[in-house]
Amino acid sequence: MDCVFCKIVNGEIPSERVVETEKVLAFLDLYPVNKGHVLVIPRQHYFRLDEIDATTLHQMVEVAQKVAAAQVYGLSAEGYNLVMNNGEVAGQEILHAHMHVIPRFSNDQMRFGWRHLEYAKGELQDYGKRLREFL
Amino acid sequence: MDCVFCKIVNGEIPSERVVETEKVLAFLDLYPVNKGHVLVIPRQHYFRLDEIDATTLHQMVEVAQKVAAAQVYGLSAEGYNLVMNNGEVAGQEILHAHMHVIPRFSNDQMRFGWRHLEYAKGELQDYGKRLREFL
Repeated sequence: MDCVFCKIVNGEIPSERVVETEKVLAFLDLYPVNKGHVLVIPRQHYFRLDEIDATTLHQMVEVAQKVAAAQVYGLSAEGYNLVMNNGEVAGQEILHAHMHVIPRFSNDQMRFGWRHLEYAKGELQDYGKRLREFL
Repeated sequence: MDCVFCKIVNGEIPSERVVETEKVLAFLDLYPVNKGHVLVIPRQHYFRLDEIDATTLHQMVEVAQKVAAAQVYGLSAEGYNLVMNNGEVAGQEILHAHMHVIPRFSNDQMRFGWRHLEYAKGELQDYGKRLREFL
C-alpha cells in the first residue's frame, strides 16, 4: 500500500521518532502547527478512530499523554491540543489514523476556528435519541 | 468546587446523556460546532490529559470511539474530529478535562484553522532530543 505513514513505520521514510511501543510510533510532524508538534500513529494501518483495536488505542492515548507531558516539561508548553481528524471531510490528509499532539504557547498566535450553533426546542433530545440508538 | 462538569456528573445540572460508564460520562454539547457534537468527560475532576489515570483514560477513548461510530451510523456523519484542548492557552474553556467528538459533513462549512511551520536545518533533531529527554 502506498501509505506515507506505513513507510515511516517500516523505515522506508526517515522520521524523528520520540516514542516507540509494541503497537505505536510517535514522531515529529515535519510541517508543525507549532514546533514540537508530534504525531502518534498505530503501526498497523487503520483509517479512522472507530476501527482501531482496544490494545492499540490504549497505547496511542497513553503515548499521547506522555508526549504532552514532555512538551510541557521539555519545551515549556503552557498547554497542548490533542486532535484526531477522521475522514477527509474532517481534514484528515493522510488516511492512516493519527493523533496530533500540539504544544501551545500564550504568544503562538494560533487560533483554531471554532463556532457554536444552537439547538431549536426539542432538537437536543432528538439528537440524543438518534445517537443512543447506536450506543 | 464550582465546576460545571462536576455538577453535570452529580446531576445538579441536567444534560442530554448518551453514554455512561463507571469512570466516564458522555453528553451532548449545548453549543455544538455541529449538531450531535458530544463531550466525553471523566466523572472525577481532572484538569488535563496528562493527569488522567489509565483506567479512566481508556474508558474515555473507548467511549469516544463508540460515539464517533454512532455519529456515522445515527447521524450520517461522513467523518468526525476528536479534539481535546488542554490548558486555557489551548482553548480549554471549562477546566475539567473533556474530549470533543464532532460529527462532520461535507456541506458543514466548518474549517479548523491550521497552519504549517517549517523547521530550520538541525532544528527538527533538536526538538526530538528535547522531547526524548522526558520520554
